[in-house]
Amino acid sequence: MTWPSPPGRLPAAGSPLGLHRVIDPPGVLPQAAWRLDPDPQIASDEVRVRVDRLNLDAASYRQIRETYAGDPDKIRAAVLEIIATRGKMQNPVTGSGGMLTGTVEEAGPDSPLGLRPGQRIAALVSLTLTPLTITDSLYRWDAQSEQVPCEAHAILFARSIAAVVPDDLPIPLSLSVLDVCGAPALTQRVIKATRATGAREAPGPIILIIGAAGKSGSLSAAAARQAGAAKIIGVVPTEAAGADTSTAGQPLVDEIVIADARDPVGLAGKVEAAGGPADVTVVCVDVPGCEGGAILSTTQGGTVIFFSMATSFSAAALGAEGLAADVTMLVGNGYVPGHADLALGLIRSAPGLRALFERRLPGQRWSGRDVRHEGGQP
Amino acid sequence: MTWPSPPGRLPAAGSPLGLHRVIDPPGVLPQAAWRLDPDPQIASDEVRVRVDRLNLDAASYRQIRETYAGDPDKIRAAVLEIIATRGKMQNPVTGSGGMLTGTVEEAGPDSPLGLRPGQRIAALVSLTLTPLTITDSLYRWDAQSEQVPCEAHAILFARSIAAVVPDDLPIPLSLSVLDVCGAPALTQRVIKATRATGAREAPGPIILIIGAAGKSGSLSAAAARQAGAAKIIGVVPTEAAGADTSTAGQPLVDEIVIADARDPVGLAGKVEAAGGPADVTVVCVDVPGCEGGAILSTTQGGTVIFFSMATSFSAAALGAEGLAADVTMLVGNGYVPGHADLALGLIRSAPGLRALFERRLPGQRWSGRDVRHEGGQP
Repeated sequence: MTWPSPPGRLPAAGSPLGLHRVIDPPGVLPQAAWRLDPDPQIASDEVRVRVDRLNLDAASYRQIRETYAGDPDKIRAAVLEIIATRGKMQNPVTGSGGMLTGTVEEAGPDSPLGLRPGQRIAALVSLTLTPLTITDSLYRWDAQSEQVPCEAHAILFARSIAAVVPDDLPIPLSLSVLDVCGAPALTQRVIKATRATGAREAPGPIILIIGAAGKSGSLSAAAARQAGAAKIIGVVPTEAAGADTSTAGQPLVDEIVIADARDPVGLAGKVEAAGGPADVTVVCVDVPGCEGGAILSTTQGGTVIFFSMATSFSAAALGAEGLAADVTMLVGNGYVPGHADLALGLIRSAPGLRALFERRLPGQRWSGRDVRHEGGQP
Repeated sequence: MTWPSPPGRLPAAGSPLGLHRVIDPPGVLPQAAWRLDPDPQIASDEVRVRVDRLNLDAASYRQIRETYAGDPDKIRAAVLEIIATRGKMQNPVTGSGGMLTGTVEEAGPDSPLGLRPGQRIAALVSLTLTPLTITDSLYRWDAQSEQVPCEAHAILFARSIAAVVPDDLPIPLSLSVLDVCGAPALTQRVIKATRATGAREAPGPIILIIGAAGKSGSLSAAAARQAGAAKIIGVVPTEAAGADTSTAGQPLVDEIVIADARDPVGLAGKVEAAGGPADVTVVCVDVPGCEGGAILSTTQGGTVIFFSMATSFSAAALGAEGLAADVTMLVGNGYVPGHADLALGLIRSAPGLRALFERRLPGQRWSGRDVRHEGGQP
C-alpha cells in the first residue's frame, strides 16, 4: 500500500462512524473497541491528519505518571505501547483519551468535513475513537505534562468533527475556546427556542449561569447576551471570580451572585434576590451536588442545561421530582452544528470574554485540567 | 397541641418545600436533611395523611433484611428506629425511601393540592422527604416483603405531589400506573412540541420506545399514539416480550424490534430496517449501557428522553459528541403537571395496555422491583 494515495485510487467510502476500522471486537463502535485499524490509507470519505500534538486527558496522564512514579522513559513507553496495541490513545484504566491538533494531509473526495490539505485543525472528537499511529517514538516529549509534541498520523471519519484553527487568533486561545464550544451553542439554541414560544418574547428570558467565571460559563454568558437574554445572572464561588467576569467595563453578566452552588436553598434565595428565578439555567461548574440548586433556581416551565460532567443523572431526575419542579432538563451535548464558529466569533466580538480567557491560559499550550474540568473532550 | 386542629387555628403557611420541617441540619432541603419534624399539627398549606401502607424501596428493604439475616423482629425494629430517629423513612445506608398510600385526614385551607378529607391517595413524592410517624409499632408487618401495612401519619407540603386513587380501577393497578406516570406525560409533551415545530407535521413523528413491554415503556407507547405519532417502533429483548405488547388485536406499537439495546450498531441497524431512525426515542429499559444505541437510532435533530435510572450522564454526553449526533437529550423528569390523570386515562382507554399491566401485577399489591427498575419513586 502506498500513501499519500494516487489520485482516483481511494477505496470506496467507509462507514461514516468508522465501523470499518474496528478490528476487535467486531461490530462495536470505535469508542467501545479494544483495537482499531490505523492504516494511513484513507477511504474516499476519510481524512488523514499529520498530527503535531496530543493533549492527553488529565485523568489518563495522571494515572500513567503515578503508575510509573514519574519516570519519563517508562511513561513514554507506556503511551507508545497503548497506541501500538490499540490503534488509538485510550488509557485502558481510565477509559479516557484526549484531543489532537495537526495539519490536513489528505482529504478524500467524499469527505463531508470540508477540509483541504495544509489546513491546521483541531479534532473535536475524542482520541478514544480516532485511529492513530505514532511515527517518532515520542522522543520530543519530556513526559512532564499531558502535552505531547509528536509526529503521528490520525484518521477522521465522515462523521468526525474538526475545526480549522483560525489565523487571526493565537493558537492556544483558539484551542482553549474550541475545547468548550458546545456549551455556548446549546445555550443559544435553547434561548432562541424559549423566545420562539412567545412566553418571554419581551423583554426576553432571564438566564442563570452557574460557574460564570469559567471557560464554558463565560462563553455561555456571551452567547446568552447575543441571543437576546433580558438579564444574565452569574453565580461564582468568590468575589475574585466575580470581578473576573467584569473586564474594562464590559461585564459578561448583569448580576453577580456569590454562593455555594451545592446549597440549593441558599443559592435559590440569592438568585431570587438578584432577579430570578431563571427561565434558562446553565450549569458549568464542575462540582458534584449542584443539581438541586440549579432546579430550585429555575422557574416552573423553565429549562436547565447540565454541562458539568460531575452531573448525576439520578440526582437530577429525582431532585426535580422531589421538588415537584416542572423543568426541562438537558444533557449538555458537546456537539451542535456550527459550534466552533459560534464560539470563535464570540471570543472575537466580546473583548471582556477574550481577556478572561487569556488570563486563564496557562504557560503550556492549553490546560488539560480545564479540559477535564469543564466538560471538554475526555 | 391538639389534632385534628380546631377550625381557624392552623399555623400560618409554611415553606412550600417543607423547609420549616427541617430540624437537622438547618437550611437544607427535606430530602437532604438528617432529621425532619413529623409533628401531626399541620400548617395552613399542609395536608396530613392517615397512612395505611408504605412501599419501601427495594434496595433499602434488601439492605435491611440482609443486615439482620431476615429476622422479622430485628427488621421491624430497624425500620421503626430509622423513622423515629429521622422523622422520615430514609435508609441511611442506601439513601432511598419508597412511597406511601393512605387517606386524607386534614387538608389546610391554603394547600394547593386540592385534596379533601376522606380521599384515598398515593403520595407521588418520595418517603425520603416526607415527615412520618408510625403509631402501631408495625405489628401487622411480617417483614417478609417491602410492603408495610401500618398505622401512621405523614405530612404533605404545598409543593408535594399526590394522586387520588380512582374508584373505577383496582387499587393495585392504579398504584402500578401512578408509579411510572411521568414517562407518558413527558413523552406526550415532547411529541407535541416536535409536531408544533412543523418538521413532522404530516404524517407525524416516528417514535422509538426502548423497553416497550415494560410499564413505563408501554404507557409511553400509548401516550405516543394519542399524541399523533406516525409510527411507533418498540424494542424488546425477546419474542415473548414482543408478543406481550400485542393483546387481542390491539398492538401498542407498529413494529417490534427484538434486539440487545446495549449494542448500538446492531440496534440502530434493526431500527432502520423497521422504519427508523426515530424523531423521538424514549429509553425505558433499566440496563446500563443503552445510551449509544438510543443516540444512534435517533435522527439528526431528534430527541432522546432517558427515563431509565441506569442512564449514565457522561455516557450520554460523550456518546453523542463521539457520534457527532445533534440530538436533544432529556433527563426524564418524573414530574409533569397532570401526569397522574393522563396515565390513568390511558390505562382506561387502551385495553391492550391494561391487559399488559394486569399481567405484570404480582401477587402482592405492587412490585417494589418494578418500582426500582423503571424509574419510579426510590
